[in-house]
This record gives sequence, structure tokens and C-alpha cells, in this order.
Amino acid sequence: MYKHILFAAELNETKSYIEDKVTQLQELTQAKLSVIHVVEPIPNAYYAGVYGTMPGLDPIDSIGTTRALAERAKEILQPLAKRFNILEQDLHIPIGHISGEVFAFAEKENVDLIITGSHGVHGLQLLLGSTCNAILHGAKCDVLAVRYPE
Amino acid sequence: MYKHILFAAELNETKSYIEDKVTQLQELTQAKLSVIHVVEPIPNAYYAGVYGTMPGLDPIDSIGTTRALAERAKEILQPLAKRFNILEQDLHIPIGHISGEVFAFAEKENVDLIITGSHGVHGLQLLLGSTCNAILHGAKCDVLAVRYPE
Repeated sequence: MYKHILFAAELNETKSYIEDKVTQLQELTQAKLSVIHVVEPIPNAYYAGVYGTMPGLDPIDSIGTTRALAERAKEILQPLAKRFNILEQDLHIPIGHISGEVFAFAEKENVDLIITGSHGVHGLQLLLGSTCNAILHGAKCDVLAVRYPE
Repeated sequence: MYKHILFAAELNETKSYIEDKVTQLQELTQAKLSVIHVVEPIPNAYYAGVYGTMPGLDPIDSIGTTRALAERAKEILQPLAKRFNILEQDLHIPIGHISGEVFAFAEKENVDLIITGSHGVHGLQLLLGSTCNAILHGAKCDVLAVRYPE
């Protein structure tokens, strides 16, 4: 029923719980599987002195730091890609706005199901959940929100 | 992977598009399938004179009207239940608050996947989408939002 599943992974989703669901659904549907993790850029303006230079704080190379984060994400997600048995070219780690990058990929690659983790609605989880929401609302394909066990 | 799928149906979802997805997923997973459609009660206060009696407006029997809506929903959904090949007892049409009734059923019956339609974000669709949102946020199980074709 689905031909191309896109798993929008957060770095903490390398846990086996959500992985198992993605694997099972991929096997049941025999869909192609791609994994995407979007690294949001560290805003230059905030760190690089637009709000004034703070004494004792070194200017931060935010572009360099963002790239380093993307490299780190790749290190973390490569074992996941291996467990999913997907090629390295099917693991995507763009830098940008989360839902924008997910939708751009989904449309370009004819994704028909996006799988994402779904958190509760308290505290930090509310913030994380809002990504899931943004994906849900903007997606032009089906979205499966996998609920983390509490 | 899923043992009990709950399809939260809107009346306009008797269209074949979303039905096909529900059927395919049920067949792939061999899960039990239940269908729920929640009829929201017409508020008594609004219609029955709390805001004053409006000249020329008959008092409306809102409880009776709500029950009639539930009966009508049943008529509309029975052919759907037949197409899904489910027993009449697996078609549920409670009266109440949409997400509350869906969650109560899901928890009582150990539902592990709720399937609901997902609309766009414009105009009336935004309002409809908010039900999907409420279901997504409050659900203790996975939620599949099936995107209607535009």
C-alpha cells in the first residue's frame, strides 16, 4: 500500500522501540525506506554579536558548529541506517527548517508515508510534539505518529 | 504489528479513498478493526432559551435532535461496516466529545493504532484538522493520519 516510507528521525529515536515499528511497516508493505534527520542551523544573529558582544564569550562560528552537528548526527545515524539495511545514500541529513526539509524531500522523492515520533503534551515534550504537528499539517502524504511509551 | 485498529470515521469518509487504506492496513497486519464515529451533542443552552427566547424560533429539542443525528450516522455507516466486513457490535457511535470518546474507547479496548483523516490547513479544513490534532496529542497509541487527495 505504501511505496516509499520516510522516517523522520530524531537522534533519541535510535532507540529500538520506534525502529521496530519502522522495520515492521517497511517489511509488511515492501516499501522503499529513507531516513531523514534535519539539523536546524544555529542562528548567526544570536551568537555572533547582533545583541552586543558579551564579555568573556568568544564569538562562535555558528556555521561551523552547525556543520559539526550534522557530522555528529551522521555518526549517530549511520548504525541506524545499517540496522535498517539501507544504503548510505538513503540516509539524509540536510541543514534547514525541519518540516520544510522533510516536505521538500517527500515531494521530490514521491514519499507516501512519513513516520515520526509523537511525544506527550507536557513541558519540553510539547515543543517536540509541535514538530510532529507541523509535519502532520503540511504533509501532502500520510503521516504515522508513533507514540513513545511513557 | 498492530492488534486492534480503530478507524475514527467522519461521515464524509465513507468515500473509498480512506476506506481502501484502512482495509489494506487491516489486511497487512491482520488486526481486529473497529469503527467509531462520535456525534457531538447539540448544546442545550444555546438552543433552549438560556440566551433568551427568540421570537419566531421554536424551542428545539436538542437531546432528541442529537439522538436523531446518531441514528442517521448509523444508517450512513452501516454499509461501511458491511464493506469492512465487521460485526455491527464493532461499529460504535457514541454521543460526546470527539477526542474524549475516541480515547476512552481506545484505552478500554486496547487499541494500538487509530486511523483518522487529515485535511489541509485552510478555512473549514483547519477546524476539521484540529480534531485530528487533538487525537494525535491525547492518544496513548500510534495515530495514522490519512491525507485526503486535494
